[in-house]
Amino acid sequence: MSSHSAFRRRNPLTGEWVLVSPHRNNRPWSGAVEELPVGKLPSHDPNCPLCPGNTRANGESNPEYPTTFVFDNDFAALTRNQSAETPNTDLFTQESAVGLARVICFAPDHNRSLPQLEPAEMFAVVDTWRDQYQQLSEQFNCVHIFENKGEIMGCSQPHPHGQVWAHQHYSTEIERENRHQSEYFEQHNEAMLLEYAEREIEARERLVALNNDWVVVVPYWAKWPFETLLICRHAVADFNDLKDEQAQSLAEIVSLLTTKYDNVFNCSFPYSMGWHNAPSDLVEKRHWVLHAHFYPPLLRSASVKKHMVGYEMLAESQRDLTPELAADILRQCSEVHYLERKE
Amino acid sequence: MSSHSAFRRRNPLTGEWVLVSPHRNNRPWSGAVEELPVGKLPSHDPNCPLCPGNTRANGESNPEYPTTFVFDNDFAALTRNQSAETPNTDLFTQESAVGLARVICFAPDHNRSLPQLEPAEMFAVVDTWRDQYQQLSEQFNCVHIFENKGEIMGCSQPHPHGQVWAHQHYSTEIERENRHQSEYFEQHNEAMLLEYAEREIEARERLVALNNDWVVVVPYWAKWPFETLLICRHAVADFNDLKDEQAQSLAEIVSLLTTKYDNVFNCSFPYSMGWHNAPSDLVEKRHWVLHAHFYPPLLRSASVKKHMVGYEMLAESQRDLTPELAADILRQCSEVHYLERKE
Ligand SMILES: O=P(O)(O)O[C@H]1O[C@H](CO)[C@@H](O)[C@H](O)[C@H]1O
Ligand SMILES: O=P(O)(O)O[C@H]1O[C@H](CO)[C@@H](O)[C@H](O)[C@H]1O
Repeated sequence: MSSHSAFRRRNPLTGEWVLVSPHRNNRPWSGAVEELPVGKLPSHDPNCPLCPGNTRANGESNPEYPTTFVFDNDFAALTRNQSAETPNTDLFTQESAVGLARVICFAPDHNRSLPQLEPAEMFAVVDTWRDQYQQLSEQFNCVHIFENKGEIMGCSQPHPHGQVWAHQHYSTEIERENRHQSEYFEQHNEAMLLEYAEREIEARERLVALNNDWVVVVPYWAKWPFETLLICRHAVADFNDLKDEQAQSLAEIVSLLTTKYDNVFNCSFPYSMGWHNAPSDLVEKRHWVLHAHFYPPLLRSASVKKHMVGYEMLAESQRDLTPELAADILRQCSEVHYLERKE
Repeated sequence: MSSHSAFRRRNPLTGEWVLVSPHRNNRPWSGAVEELPVGKLPSHDPNCPLCPGNTRANGESNPEYPTTFVFDNDFAALTRNQSAETPNTDLFTQESAVGLARVICFAPDHNRSLPQLEPAEMFAVVDTWRDQYQQLSEQFNCVHIFENKGEIMGCSQPHPHGQVWAHQHYSTEIERENRHQSEYFEQHNEAMLLEYAEREIEARERLVALNNDWVVVVPYWAKWPFETLLICRHAVADFNDLKDEQAQSLAEIVSLLTTKYDNVFNCSFPYSMGWHNAPSDLVEKRHWVLHAHFYPPLLRSASVKKHMVGYEMLAESQRDLTPELAADILRQCSEVHYLERKE
């Protein structure tokens, strides 16, 4: 036994493991706090395809929208067309993927991301998520609502926006999470994530934020350095189940979490985040609890990211910073956005 | 049915699916061929911790090695120490991870990567892989031999090198591949990858390179744009089973594949690659066939990569370029390295 040792933790939602090597990180945490040039973006960019009033690649013009604006992705990865059928074998298995893809502009301003929105604006985003889910869950089993934020996350368009990809089939992750949550429910007669949320609220060491309806933790099995899991504390399986006051408290906690993220390195913190709603064709969905994953890549500064490469691709995820230390750093981050602080 | 449609393919080694959206890519392939500055590296860099004769962080000096050189990773993610035991539940599962990590320098020269090595030098690399596997498979069940190549793959050290991480436990990917290959063997009474290799050699459309002992394909279920799978064509489960002439033909095909990779965009093609040997404690290993995965991130040019972000992290991998088109591009790439061509 030694502090110079590694361990693994198991993700009960997916069955995957993560290798943790805290000894690679056991010097006191001293991540650089680089004040990156904010790159002063204008509030309206005439060349941005997402700004109000501008014309997009397909010739359509965006309206002068006051809060959010949703349109069909001009380069959708999914369409309503069936692909040609192919003969399947155990080695060559292909199936059609039918669906659609949309873009959600979060606000008219080109230069204000989620933590910089006013409460009412943030609520409009949550409301749009719910509205999209409601519309699309009537047509498709799997509605993926997500956001890629920052160039480092493949987002070439700084205008704050998210996406919706909806389709008939269960994606690999949804199938996995459904299977693991179902098995847990069968064995314990309670929902995995409700139980997990309560254990974390008691333990406190991985807790980042909490209100009556929601809890944010760095999960015990986090793979990304500052990964978090946002869990609904009630028996809510999807956005359709959500009450208005729960949507309100969701807007508040997302604001808080993304503010803390920006304050870790005093930069616009990149991440991919997304919602995992219960598949909409489930008859019995008591095992599923609505949750969102935040996967931010930064490790030591605004410009030093964790690379998930060789070992991670070929074996399993690996991290140095423990989830407990990451949670501690996030807890200590101010609730006031660094750009709004007068010091 | 329409060419404007998406489909999914299933990876039989892992059970994961990939979403393919060829319509996002159905204009004729015209990836830019950017001639990047080769950055003229010296053949010896006095500040490189991997060059012969230099001193590393821990004060040790590298010998004047003529071919390959192996040393213990100075910042190993795994050690021989047991970690403290924790009480496990279905939600909080942690186990000790015991192992070691080494670095393999591929050649004394600071500036020559695998495709630029002479045949005898490339053979020395293969021989070192075998030798490391032989030593470490006696002590550990899981020996991961891999290479991260290029800054884009988190490799900050241009001196050509790979790594070995060996440990007692089965990593997530090895457990998955073992399970799927076992199940296939039980059902078909033949090894999945031997059968798959033969089907691909017949079909030819995903074939990239072939000799008597090895085949390289863009797998039917490839997730990275130019991903390849290098499969042994014989009942060889790990490096210990490999005959000398198979090691020789392996050196040749790795040379060929990495040369073709560099020729795709006339640049030093980044990738993570790694070997999947049978876990060494398997008594019955007829279901396992020795293979390597190459995961290169570039998509359209030396500077445009595929981002595996939001949808990919939260749902499943997605690609635009079909595996068949990628194989076609790789087949057409010259077998002479672009830096050696006189035109
Ligand atoms: O060991 P290195 O080269 O310092 O580090 C690199 O490879 C490791 C194994 O794939 C990864 O965990 C690191 O994120 C990566 O930067
Ligand atoms: O749809 P976008 O923003 O053009 O593209 C981005 O998000 C997609 C969904 O996560 C990914 O497939 C792309 O690789 C990424 O660059």
